[in-house]
Amino acid sequence: MSKKGTILSGMRSTGKLHLGHLVGVLDNWKQLQDEYNCIFEVADWHALTTKYEDTSELQENIRDQVINWIAAGIDPERSIIFVQSHVPEIAELNLLLSMIVSVSRLERNPTYKEQVQELGVKDSIPFGLLEYPVLQAADILVFKGTTVPVGEDQLPHIEITRELARRFNHLYGETFPEPEAKLGEVTKLLGLDGRKMSKSYGNSIYLADSPEEIERKVKSMVTDPQRIRLKDPGNPEVCSVYSYHKLFSKDRVEEVAGGCRNATLGCMDCKKILSNSIIDYLSEIHQKRRELEENPEIIDEILAEGAKKARAIAKKTLNEVRGAMNLR
Amino acid sequence: MSKKGTILSGMRSTGKLHLGHLVGVLDNWKQLQDEYNCIFEVADWHALTTKYEDTSELQENIRDQVINWIAAGIDPERSIIFVQSHVPEIAELNLLLSMIVSVSRLERNPTYKEQVQELGVKDSIPFGLLEYPVLQAADILVFKGTTVPVGEDQLPHIEITRELARRFNHLYGETFPEPEAKLGEVTKLLGLDGRKMSKSYGNSIYLADSPEEIERKVKSMVTDPQRIRLKDPGNPEVCSVYSYHKLFSKDRVEEVAGGCRNATLGCMDCKKILSNSIIDYLSEIHQKRRELEENPEIIDEILAEGAKKARAIAKKTLNEVRGAMNLR
Repeated sequence: MSKKGTILSGMRSTGKLHLGHLVGVLDNWKQLQDEYNCIFEVADWHALTTKYEDTSELQENIRDQVINWIAAGIDPERSIIFVQSHVPEIAELNLLLSMIVSVSRLERNPTYKEQVQELGVKDSIPFGLLEYPVLQAADILVFKGTTVPVGEDQLPHIEITRELARRFNHLYGETFPEPEAKLGEVTKLLGLDGRKMSKSYGNSIYLADSPEEIERKVKSMVTDPQRIRLKDPGNPEVCSVYSYHKLFSKDRVEEVAGGCRNATLGCMDCKKILSNSIIDYLSEIHQKRRELEENPEIIDEILAEGAKKARAIAKKTLNEVRGAMNLR
Repeated sequence: MSKKGTILSGMRSTGKLHLGHLVGVLDNWKQLQDEYNCIFEVADWHALTTKYEDTSELQENIRDQVINWIAAGIDPERSIIFVQSHVPEIAELNLLLSMIVSVSRLERNPTYKEQVQELGVKDSIPFGLLEYPVLQAADILVFKGTTVPVGEDQLPHIEITRELARRFNHLYGETFPEPEAKLGEVTKLLGLDGRKMSKSYGNSIYLADSPEEIERKVKSMVTDPQRIRLKDPGNPEVCSVYSYHKLFSKDRVEEVAGGCRNATLGCMDCKKILSNSIIDYLSEIHQKRRELEENPEIIDEILAEGAKKARAIAKKTLNEVRGAMNLR
């Protein structure tokens, strides 16, 4: 193959996907498929690190996530799509890598430090959270991933992966490529309330939302706080609605910005334009979602096929790893 | 089966076995085979927690350990003998259990604290060492072990296993029995120098030692320091050689003690009696060792069969575990 290398990327299966995932991650993945061998993982084990107590929605979340991926243009003919727990070789590599990393190296991981602060009581920090970057390294290295598309916040994890690859190669002989982080121009979408779009803030538009829900949610969006009456001229640059127009109503951006500035377009009408744009933007995805929901065997087959392909690679790597470590 | 339950026990494959293992562990295992379904594990992954840097002797150590077990009377027809890394389901259960234990619970493990003190520089503590009791819990729980023969120093680890079993059952439904620690009357054998017998102190008599080596080592043993000349009466109770006689020369104990106390038996002759006793005691084991060394396919078959039986149980358990956690 003349592709540039192997991409490994994934998402934790913690719930429904929102527009932020679509423009921030999935649109990027979709493009990468042309240039790289892509392997996309639904990280259900990683989902347990923060949500182990209630796993009742796990299967539904996995299925919903894969439906969204496919609907958004991830192509199971070209890319491997699989569920982490279907490849037990990852757990074995995770265990082996845990032998060659120190406790303090993992304690210094900034993401871990943040989560410790957030969770407050140190007594309640799950061990799986400390182990998180080791498991992520196992995800990447088991497929000999060369390239990992990430946001800035994920860089420390990739650094640990790189260190583990180097350390393993140094101790047991050249086995893993040292994967490169690929920082894309990430499109960050704000939530309805102007904060980061996040499921936990309840400020998201989901890929699965109906047109009515989208309309209702867009109506609730925060606009320029200085524009109180229709006759007040507004400033689109401080308005969340406008930031959405730039992504979802590309052909009407000028018109909307002008109407806002000279007070000929009211916020209600502006939002109506936006909800229609988002509904249009998502209509193809909704159509595909419906098809996939009506034919559950399609996703079953994609995941069975993905697990088969992923395991074939993972088994080969683990054979090399066991040999290199004299575990036979 | 009318047996009392399932025993899971094991040893790290860190090197040759010595007399302390024989009288302290193997003689106990041998007896337990009559009362319990016994599963004995060569813990090669656990061996990596302290010796990951040089694995060149790992396979030799595994084989040597199994040879010793069989030679000492562990019966592969009645008990399952297997190598930990041949059962990857253990690594998967280890990962899943790591989600439901907290970092601080593992930091409070006394064995970990001791090792941290011993290793000194905190920066060099392998993460696998912190994870050690989780992996041990996975060893036990994957076979639904009910009973774990241990020394006092292992009790904190069994306590963590019990906690993990309870926690898992509480979160995901009754799955694991809560294993009981079985404290045997452990026979502790001192080393040649009077300290604990340990490979790292270089004060051990190995099961594989030749008669000449045994004679040489016994000659070097520390005796009653108050007895300087042959004519000085000795005190057998403070003499290491006498503590060995009590185990290996049972029918000559009175004679030896008397001869020491009334200065009619010199230390040289006393040691000669002991080395002969040990050589006798080990002769049957040596004979079996030779047979097994000459026919390497016997151990190959035992381990292949053991792995097969162990995996069959482990796979069944993992299916239940995945179902209980909604990992399907």
